Amino acid sequence: MQQISETDRFNVLYRIEASDRKTAQELARDITIEQTVEIPFDCIPQEHFNKGIIGHIETLENPDDGLYDVTISFRSDITAFQLTQFLNVLYGNISLKSGIKVLDISFPHSFYSHFRGPSHGIDGLREILGVYNRPLACTALKPMGLSVTELALMAHEFASGGIDLIKDDHGITDQQFHCFEERVSICAAAVEKANLASGGNTLYFPCVSGTFDLVENQVRFALSRGLKGILIAPFLSGLDTMRYLSEKYGIMIMAHPALAGAFFTGANHGIAINVLLGKIFRLAGADISIFPNWGGRFPFSKQECLSLASSLREEIGWKRSFPCPAGGMNLQRLGEMISEYGNDSVLLLGGALLQDKRGIRENSREFMSRVKAHST
Amino acid sequence: MQQISETDRFNVLYRIEASDRKTAQELARDITIEQTVEIPFDCIPQEHFNKGIIGHIETLENPDDGLYDVTISFRSDITAFQLTQFLNVLYGNISLKSGIKVLDISFPHSFYSHFRGPSHGIDGLREILGVYNRPLACTALKPMGLSVTELALMAHEFASGGIDLIKDDHGITDQQFHCFEERVSICAAAVEKANLASGGNTLYFPCVSGTFDLVENQVRFALSRGLKGILIAPFLSGLDTMRYLSEKYGIMIMAHPALAGAFFTGANHGIAINVLLGKIFRLAGADISIFPNWGGRFPFSKQECLSLASSLREEIGWKRSFPCPAGGMNLQRLGEMISEYGNDSVLLLGGALLQDKRGIRENSREFMSRVKAHST
Repeated sequence: MQQISETDRFNVLYRIEASDRKTAQELARDITIEQTVEIPFDCIPQEHFNKGIIGHIETLENPDDGLYDVTISFRSDITAFQLTQFLNVLYGNISLKSGIKVLDISFPHSFYSHFRGPSHGIDGLREILGVYNRPLACTALKPMGLSVTELALMAHEFASGGIDLIKDDHGITDQQFHCFEERVSICAAAVEKANLASGGNTLYFPCVSGTFDLVENQVRFALSRGLKGILIAPFLSGLDTMRYLSEKYGIMIMAHPALAGAFFTGANHGIAINVLLGKIFRLAGADISIFPNWGGRFPFSKQECLSLASSLREEIGWKRSFPCPAGGMNLQRLGEMISEYGNDSVLLLGGALLQDKRGIRENSREFMSRVKAHST
Repeated sequence: MQQISETDRFNVLYRIEASDRKTAQELARDITIEQTVEIPFDCIPQEHFNKGIIGHIETLENPDDGLYDVTISFRSDITAFQLTQFLNVLYGNISLKSGIKVLDISFPHSFYSHFRGPSHGIDGLREILGVYNRPLACTALKPMGLSVTELALMAHEFASGGIDLIKDDHGITDQQFHCFEERVSICAAAVEKANLASGGNTLYFPCVSGTFDLVENQVRFALSRGLKGILIAPFLSGLDTMRYLSEKYGIMIMAHPALAGAFFTGANHGIAINVLLGKIFRLAGADISIFPNWGGRFPFSKQECLSLASSLREEIGWKRSFPCPAGGMNLQRLGEMISEYGNDSVLLLGGALLQDKRGIRENSREFMSRVKAHST
């Protein structure tokens, strides 16, 4: 392991609520201590300041009444370059306070060498699919509670309609009425059968939500059935679980935002959606990050969603990840979604393909033909 | 595995923001679907209703203007009795909405048989320590960034002063300047030496924050050094990671709330602090749950803290857990803390024992003598 310089630091932009500049400065100083040494100011050894172990306030601005934007830098190696401690330095104890929101993070090169990011990224997934000049089309097997036979039939119909990616709904886990191994075997076989018949190349990503002791076996099982990717919800399974599975098995990761919403639904406290589902999920290995698109069942703005997509695709030291807007989308929204997100996106329609009475295969065909027609 | 009846259900009390009763009913119905089958209403097979797979609205009350309390029951086995999917049913997708807060959960007996809860609990820890009629006294090794020798010296002094429990600060993980194995070895030896000299029985709980692939080895290492417990932050490491380590190794678990605050700092969205750090941490195996006490550095009320303590100690199907109020406490607060929390609590003073100029050993002695004097 290379020696990390004491001057190798990462920057976090926090927005803090404060009545005036002096209060903002005090709150910012509290963050530099709370997130590092967490002891009273008068107990901090001078050497800790000299060595840069305490956070540094880099800039402090006042963008709006009662709000201050402070950039604090932290010495990179206090994270041990492990996601658990990185999250702790970023927002561990201050999550318990109020009026502090993470708006941005800038990573130094040391992060790019210690964290691998997505194992495939946009280019890798395109290569596996052989699809280059359009967005990818994705759908979900659901509802939870169907029999394994019904789920497999549905998978067969989606694949016959030519969908690029089929994922399990994130609530379809390891229930006794559709146990993981039986379900994944039969659904994978159904997709394979449809691919053989149609000459298509639909991929099936099963939902992996296993407990600490089961999750790795679930990934091995998926690989043994020839599958190339999984769906996983890092706030249910652990962010580092996702990172590990990506690094160890090189399996493609579609990340689901379940439970993560508590971090970004508060206006002035939490972690901004583009940082959490964008920068952090990418750091942790997401090849595709699913998020609730504006104008669907969830209350996010167009600006938040597009900023998230930028965080996933900007050219930094990791492979680029696919944004996957979802959450109540339908065929009528496709044109707008493609024009806003561009070709490098995964468009997820779930319930909408079940609703139309023409049937799943026909609806999937229409989905594909619209995606191809709208491509830029 | 026993067959779970379709009528075996757990209840969740949600508080939802709604302008009137009709809107509240619609929002409640949305939750029953969003958290289970997640498809449009007109696509739900009738059989899913018949089998109870959709959530049931059990009660709907209007405690205050614009707020409705709805109890929804979910079929227990849709959680697969795994924490990952339990969290998903409880709050997965609706975390992405706004104005929905989990206020309470009631578990049926099936949860008590499928989840083990704390492996030792209050009685088990008391037995290991041989301390029965008073609160336990706990402190923390810090700050992060000291040398291993300095941390070990500090541990020796705390133990010589007679403290019951010494934990690592949760930011002391596996940094190159105090790597896990070296640090834990030397600190454990220092505590053992002090115990031998004093005839005391101080326990040392190292911070385990390892990545998915390292965390189990860290626990094995701690056990190999004769240690009986660990500190772990489930929202950094994964809630199910904690559950697994407790079940597999029977090691005592002190749970730290880092990163969890985003769930309970919002007034009307999230998961109430007593539910998350109380009921859910206990379900997931916490023998001790650390939380920010009122009147310290964090903004929680007395009522929230005492309700959390009740959730940890109420007589239900799991062993009782210790509440551990912390976060800027000092010797002057001890009397009040003991009278409010009673004997079955762990009182954590960190920085306060470093601040007083008489030195760590003397401060620890005073801490112990005050705890003993105030005991009820």
